[in-house]
Order: sequence, then structure tokens, then C-alpha cells
Amino acid sequence: MSARIAHQTLKSRITSAEQAAALINPGDTVGMSGFTGSGYPKAVPLALASRIEDAHRAGDPFQVRVWTGASTGPELDAALAKANGIEFRLPYNSDPIAREKINSGQMDYFDMHLSQVAPMAWQGFLGPLDVALVEVTAINADGSLVPSSSVGNNKTWLDRADRIILEVNHWQAEELEGMHDIYYGTRLPPHRVPIPLTRPDDRIGQPTLQCDPDKIVAIVETDAPDRNLPFDAPGETALRIAGHLLDFLANEVKQGRMPENLLPLQSGVGNIANAVLSGLVNSPFENLTSYTEVIQDGMIDLLDAGKLRMASATSFSLSPEAAERMNSNMSAYREKMILRPQEISNHPELIRRLGCIAMNGLIEADIYGNVNSTHVMGSRIQNGIGGSGDFARNAYVSIFMTPSTAKGGKISAIVPQVAHVDHIAQDVQVVVTEQGLADLRGLSPKQRALAIIQNCAHPDFRPMLADYYDRALKGSYGLHAPSLPGEALSWHQRFIETGSMKV
Amino acid sequence: MSARIAHQTLKSRITSAEQAAALINPGDTVGMSGFTGSGYPKAVPLALASRIEDAHRAGDPFQVRVWTGASTGPELDAALAKANGIEFRLPYNSDPIAREKINSGQMDYFDMHLSQVAPMAWQGFLGPLDVALVEVTAINADGSLVPSSSVGNNKTWLDRADRIILEVNHWQAEELEGMHDIYYGTRLPPHRVPIPLTRPDDRIGQPTLQCDPDKIVAIVETDAPDRNLPFDAPGETALRIAGHLLDFLANEVKQGRMPENLLPLQSGVGNIANAVLSGLVNSPFENLTSYTEVIQDGMIDLLDAGKLRMASATSFSLSPEAAERMNSNMSAYREKMILRPQEISNHPELIRRLGCIAMNGLIEADIYGNVNSTHVMGSRIQNGIGGSGDFARNAYVSIFMTPSTAKGGKISAIVPQVAHVDHIAQDVQVVVTEQGLADLRGLSPKQRALAIIQNCAHPDFRPMLADYYDRALKGSYGLHAPSLPGEALSWHQRFIETGSMKV
Repeated sequence: MSARIAHQTLKSRITSAEQAAALINPGDTVGMSGFTGSGYPKAVPLALASRIEDAHRAGDPFQVRVWTGASTGPELDAALAKANGIEFRLPYNSDPIAREKINSGQMDYFDMHLSQVAPMAWQGFLGPLDVALVEVTAINADGSLVPSSSVGNNKTWLDRADRIILEVNHWQAEELEGMHDIYYGTRLPPHRVPIPLTRPDDRIGQPTLQCDPDKIVAIVETDAPDRNLPFDAPGETALRIAGHLLDFLANEVKQGRMPENLLPLQSGVGNIANAVLSGLVNSPFENLTSYTEVIQDGMIDLLDAGKLRMASATSFSLSPEAAERMNSNMSAYREKMILRPQEISNHPELIRRLGCIAMNGLIEADIYGNVNSTHVMGSRIQNGIGGSGDFARNAYVSIFMTPSTAKGGKISAIVPQVAHVDHIAQDVQVVVTEQGLADLRGLSPKQRALAIIQNCAHPDFRPMLADYYDRALKGSYGLHAPSLPGEALSWHQRFIETGSMKV
Repeated sequence: MSARIAHQTLKSRITSAEQAAALINPGDTVGMSGFTGSGYPKAVPLALASRIEDAHRAGDPFQVRVWTGASTGPELDAALAKANGIEFRLPYNSDPIAREKINSGQMDYFDMHLSQVAPMAWQGFLGPLDVALVEVTAINADGSLVPSSSVGNNKTWLDRADRIILEVNHWQAEELEGMHDIYYGTRLPPHRVPIPLTRPDDRIGQPTLQCDPDKIVAIVETDAPDRNLPFDAPGETALRIAGHLLDFLANEVKQGRMPENLLPLQSGVGNIANAVLSGLVNSPFENLTSYTEVIQDGMIDLLDAGKLRMASATSFSLSPEAAERMNSNMSAYREKMILRPQEISNHPELIRRLGCIAMNGLIEADIYGNVNSTHVMGSRIQNGIGGSGDFARNAYVSIFMTPSTAKGGKISAIVPQVAHVDHIAQDVQVVVTEQGLADLRGLSPKQRALAIIQNCAHPDFRPMLADYYDRALKGSYGLHAPSLPGEALSWHQRFIETGSMKV
């Protein structure tokens, strides 16, 4: 198996997952690879969870602090959360078991802008990083590492950690080598310089990760697939959202506000985002590019259709079928894709410069265009802000999309006031539901309210919203953005009490 | 007087303010100079207001759309608002009469990130710009323009407008020539390139504004001072806030998280910000720099004391006394100051690269660290978000400061939930009141709540906050960021009903 470990000295550090896990101590902060269900370590976290469970059975406390790229797979977050092994987690989570631990108050979670994780780790206030636990595709003879299916914060973890554990995953295609672009030019101020990237397809770094071999304390070989959820075929609602959005983009081109091949696409993960990408396959747009966090199935379809010229991201997030399809033809795909560290894929400097078209999902938007992406009913975290803030704030146009209702119609995605804010109205330029699209650019709050209620709200909730807004216009403390604080969050309270936002 | 107009052809376009105002039509969009009470046109807006009042008396509709750099002086916003002459205003306002028109629903106001005004004007969705009305210090023989005491969006207005009206203000020191740095390298995507600025004192542009002389339809000469409010001597509260903040910075240096000369300072406008700057005069810090929006009195004190090596901004915001002091010695100050377009002073790329220490005020913060900078009781706009979002999101450390109470103790600046969000918790790293400082970096929501309640809240409100938080811990839908939607905004509702947040 060790053909993928070309560095002679390091071959001697090959060991079992259990022995590697034994090198992680209670209280350690562990920087793990992984961004979505891609490129995360798949054996050592399981062994660590088992070790933690043993300790707990023996009455010994054992928890670690876990830093990652973003979400990971069940062998990491689910296993460690189930073992009550995570004291503190950053910067993003979408695992249901970990989510439950967070929302029941058993796990501390710091939900961060993904572009800021690496620089903040360097700033030092997050504390030291004891261990880096990183999946790679191979170890070269010079000790450099071929990344696997995500880059995330791996560069930073390897640089910052006192000791390093590697998983070499034979499931990852060897032809991944050469796809990555690892930029080593970031610094802390006052030593920062311009990042020399002006097109999504620019390569500004090197294909491998640097790593001090002396810090590597264990290497574990695995042969385990990435685990991302399959995408649903787009339903009627997703298709209608995609349709409104494609019409908007076509009109922007027609009005001369966008080039004919658009601008680099950023797309959140999920079924609606995937439906939009699928919609682009049959659109008139050609020669597209993408500058985004993750490459999901729809982007592979766009590449295969010859519509997408190139895709830049920090990770794949592919269904098992799409992952197999790509792995079996990696050397061809490698020419059209670049995976970068997330401090680069999500860098405000680059997103602003490139002028991305940001397309993200939401939990709820209010009538003034503020968006809640994270906190159900204001208190229960769903996943996290992820990179949506990096993109929405700096995009050429920032689009948020959602079905107009949830929970079988009992929840309205358009509310009088969001119960938590992730994206302020200034960063929300277009809201799309299956009902229609509200172009909020250049509008005052009251103009935005009319557009959102009329174009985006579900007919079941539109009269309730219009009624609230009319009464706010009469009874508000100020009439810039009329509101009734005694009632603004009553829809959420009603849902908590009755299971429905409807009266 | 016309010695300051060296271009021969343009001398023939010198006219009266009334004749210039007659060139502005009902419904026009007018891009005006001005950023704080500096560098705004002082004669034509008054004449325009008079013309609008005449039209209204005759029963004729007459309103214009007004774009500026930020706030301006009373001859502009107050005069036009009083005449009911403004249909729509962007991107910032602090004039009391205009504020009242906005909050009574008579004026539409689009409150924007200041860095985004120029690029969004170019994107085109804000509509065409009919007139640029810009104050300058002088017109050179080649037609180039010497800017006055603010740069703001003047470059963009001159480039975008169909016709141009200039005010040449003889009150502005001729020695301002050479202080400005006007960067002409910005473009719309996909043509954007890195902005080549790596230190606050870099000059990357030219000292004058370019202007097509054929577009200039009128030139009006004035001799009128900028009008900014004087600063109060720092009171006990401001001094205590400044003290906590200076202790924090000293500790950051001690911990090795900041260089000994700190990092470029950004400071909002106002008495507390000014107190912090004054505090730095007597601090051990040396060789400081500033990369900010406005240069206010405290920065002049720092320069005079030899503590500040250089200051970069887009405008002065000086008390009448400080303005006189600087004007009388401009050639010396000119070596230590740079005024830039606000798309550069506030550019996310540059703020992130330089690693600014952002220090801004607020109206209220909640126990989780979300900040409301703009909307009193959630609906009544005070001023606007201005550049605070540009800086807070991209700063090396983002600090918000406020007295812990307002209105004689009837309003708590720390509330269970802010009634409006301008800065999400991820962008708020330190909150300071006269009570103390909460360092929120790396903390989960519940950890943040404890720090803010304990360190920042006023003792009169601390038990009420602790009581709310305790009950939220028991009754919340989720325990990530515990909240009670039925009660979260009740403090605001109580203030509206009773005039106090106290029970």
C-alpha cells in the first residue's frame, strides 16, 4: 500500500489509526482537514472517538477542541459528537448529531466567516494548535504533500500545529496531483501584499502542501470514499426559482450590466443551487467561469456540457455517482478545475476584484431584505454562516434564494423581521422564491418591503405581511424602516407555541 | 477672484450660484461633493433650494435625487431637505432636518456601505447621473482640478455625469494641492486588478482630478468655510472608555499579537473616538499610522505630538479651530496626510491587507455581540452605516464603543436583542463601555453573553439582562444562542410606550 509514501524516513511512521489516535491528548486543539464531506480524515477520528468513549466509561474526562475547513463527514463530526468528545468546534458544522449537541447546550460552537479562519488562527487569540490531522492523496519524496479532495485550512494547520498526523487515502485519485494551487504568499499585517489573482483560472501558488517531516508523528493509510449526500432531482419549486434567476441574469446582460458570459459564479451547496446550475446547462450562456467554495454535481454537468470554462473552489462536494465519474477521468477534469486554500477561495479581496455572482440559500428574509441563514427561530443553529458573508458582502450582485415556505407551509420564509441576522440588507440585492424575484438594488427600505411582499412571499402569508406593514406604517417609532417591536418576532413565537406561523 | 481658475476657456463659464442652479432640472440626479461638513458645495445648493421653493410656491413639482460622499453641511442637506427638494438620498445623512424628513416618511434614503457607492454607480442600476456639483480648490491650466477638503466620490461623479458644475472655494488653502492621491485604476469586473497599496502612506495615483472641460457648464466662486461641529472636551465616560481600550491595545502588544506601533488606526467620528485619539497622545505608542475615513481633531493632536507618522483618509472633519490651525500651516501638514477617493479609503481589499484597528460607535449591542449602528428602536434612522461595515468586516480587530446608557439612563446600550443589525456578531470582536471591555474573539454565543453582560452592561440593567438570559437558557427553542422571541424586543417596545427601557 505504501507506494503513495515516497519519502523514505516517513515510511517508518506508518501506523494504525488507533496508535495515531493515542497521540492526541485530552484538551488538545486538533486542526482537521475536511470541507463538506470531502477530504476529511476518515480513520483516526473514529479511533479517537472510540478512545474517548473508553475514557468516559472509565470515568475520565476527555474532550478535544476541533477546528476544520467547514463541515466534514460522519466519521469525524458525528463520531466525535456522539462520544461527547468535542468541547469546542469551529468554523462550521452541518452534522445532525453535532448540531443536536450544540443546540442542547453541550457543545460550544464558534460560527465564523470561512475566509477568516486561517488569518485568525495566525493572529493567535484562538490559542495554540496542538495537532494537525490531515487527509492527503500522497506524500512525495521531498516530503511535500498532494492534497486530496478539499484544501480548506490544511496549509494553516500544517504550518501552525506542533505535531502532525496524516491519513493517506488511496481512494483519492492519484491524478489529483496538479489540480491544486496552494498560495504561500499570505502574511499577517503589516506584511500583507496584493494577492496576484485576476482571473478564476490563475494559478498563483504550487500544486502541493509544504510540511516539515520532523513534525509528522504518525501516518495512517486508508481507502475510504468521501461521503457527500446525493442531490435530489430538482422539483417544481427549485425549477421555478432557477427560472426566475436565469431570467434576471439574461436581463442584466441585455441591459449591459453584465458581460455575455456573465461573471464568476459562486453557488452555495444544496438542491436549489444545484437546480440553478443545471438550468444553466440549457441556457444561452457560454464560456462561464466559477469562483466558489465547492464544486458540486451541477458544475460537473456544466463542464461536461462545455458551458463552464473553468471552476475554482476549495473543495468538491459531489454525490457518490459524480465523485466516481470524476475520479475515473480525473486527468481530463484536472485541466478545468483548481482547488485552493479557503482563505483564497473566499478572500474578500478576490471576490470583490473578480465580481462574483453570489447565489446563496437562506432560512428566512424579512420585508426589508435582512437575511437569516443560520438560526431557526433565532436560537437554534442550523449549520453556520460559512462563506456566505464573504461572498454576499463583496459580490458584484448578491442573490439569496429559497422556497417561500417551509415545514409544509407552516413557516413563511418571508417574515416581518428576521429572528437573527447574518446578512444585512445592504448585502442582499436580490431575493428569489418560487413566487418571483425582488430586485432590491438601489431601493429604500419601504421600496424594498413592497417588492419583497409582492414578489417573494407565499400567497398564504402575503396578506399577513401586508397587514403588518400597513400597521407599522401607522404605528412605527420612525418611518424609515417601519416596525412594531412588540410584534416583529411574534411569528416566531407563534411557531414555537403552536407549530405554525399562521394565525 | 478668478486667479484660481487657470484654464482660459473655463474662465468664461464663471457665473452666479443662481444661474448655475438654473441648470439643474426637476427629477435630475445630482452627484455632489462632500464628506462630513467638508468639501461640499456651499452656494449652488442654497440657490437650488431657493429655486425649488419658488417652484413649489407656484404649484410646480420640483425634487432632485441627491448622491454625495457621505454627510455634508447645512447649506446642502438642510437647505434642500427644508425645501422638500430631495426625492431620494444616498449614501449617508446626518443632517437633522433631512433625518426628520426620512423618518416621517417624506424622503427615500438608501443607506449604503461607503466603499460601494462608486462601483455601484458604475454598475448602472442606480440610474444615470445628470449633474456633478463639486467643490474644488482650484482649476489648473490643463483643466485638472485641485480637490478641496474631501475627496469622497468626486472622481466618480465627474466621470459619470452628463454635465458638471464646479464651485471654486477660496477659503480652502491653496497648499492643499499635492495632498490628494486620486487613483484612476479602478474598473468594473472582469477588468479589475490588484490595488497597489501596501502601506497607509503609499501614493498610487495623482494629485488632481481629471475632468472633461467640455462637460463643465458653470463655475461658481465661493469663499465659505467648511462647517463641522466642534468636539466636546472628553467627559468622564469617554475617558473611561478610552482607558479600557488603550489597556486592551497595550496588552495585545504585550502578548505579541500586534506590533509595538500598533496597526493602522480607523476611527469613527465623534466625541468618544476623539477621546481615544487624545488618549493616544499620552500613551507609550509611537510611530502610529492611520487608514481611516476622516481626519478629526484628535488626529491633528497626534500628528502635532509626533505620535502619528501619517494619516490617510477621504476627508477632514475638523472643528472650526482645528481647521484654521491646519489651513494656516497646510504645507507642513501636507507631508503627513493623504486624502483619497472613498472607494480607496474604505476598500475591503486594502482594509484587510493593512489590518486596520477599527474603532466605531454604536447605538446598541445585544448580549451576543450583534450591533445596531443606525436604527433607533429598530425603525428610526439616526445617520447610516457609513463606512463602519467596510472596516468592521475586514479589520484586524473590530472594536465597538459606547456609553452603557443613553437618555439619562433610560436606554441601555446593551439589550437582549438589537432591534436592527448593522454588524453581525462575527464582525464585532470587542465591545467597550465605561463599565469595561468584553473581548469576544473566539467565543461561542453563550460565552459572549456572559462577557458582555458582566463587563459592559450598566449596573442598572445588568440584573434585567441576567434575568432574561437565565430564562432564555431555560425556555429557548435552541440553546446555541438562547432567545425568547416573544420578549427579545420588549425593551424597545417599553421605551416606545413609557419613555424608558426600565420596568
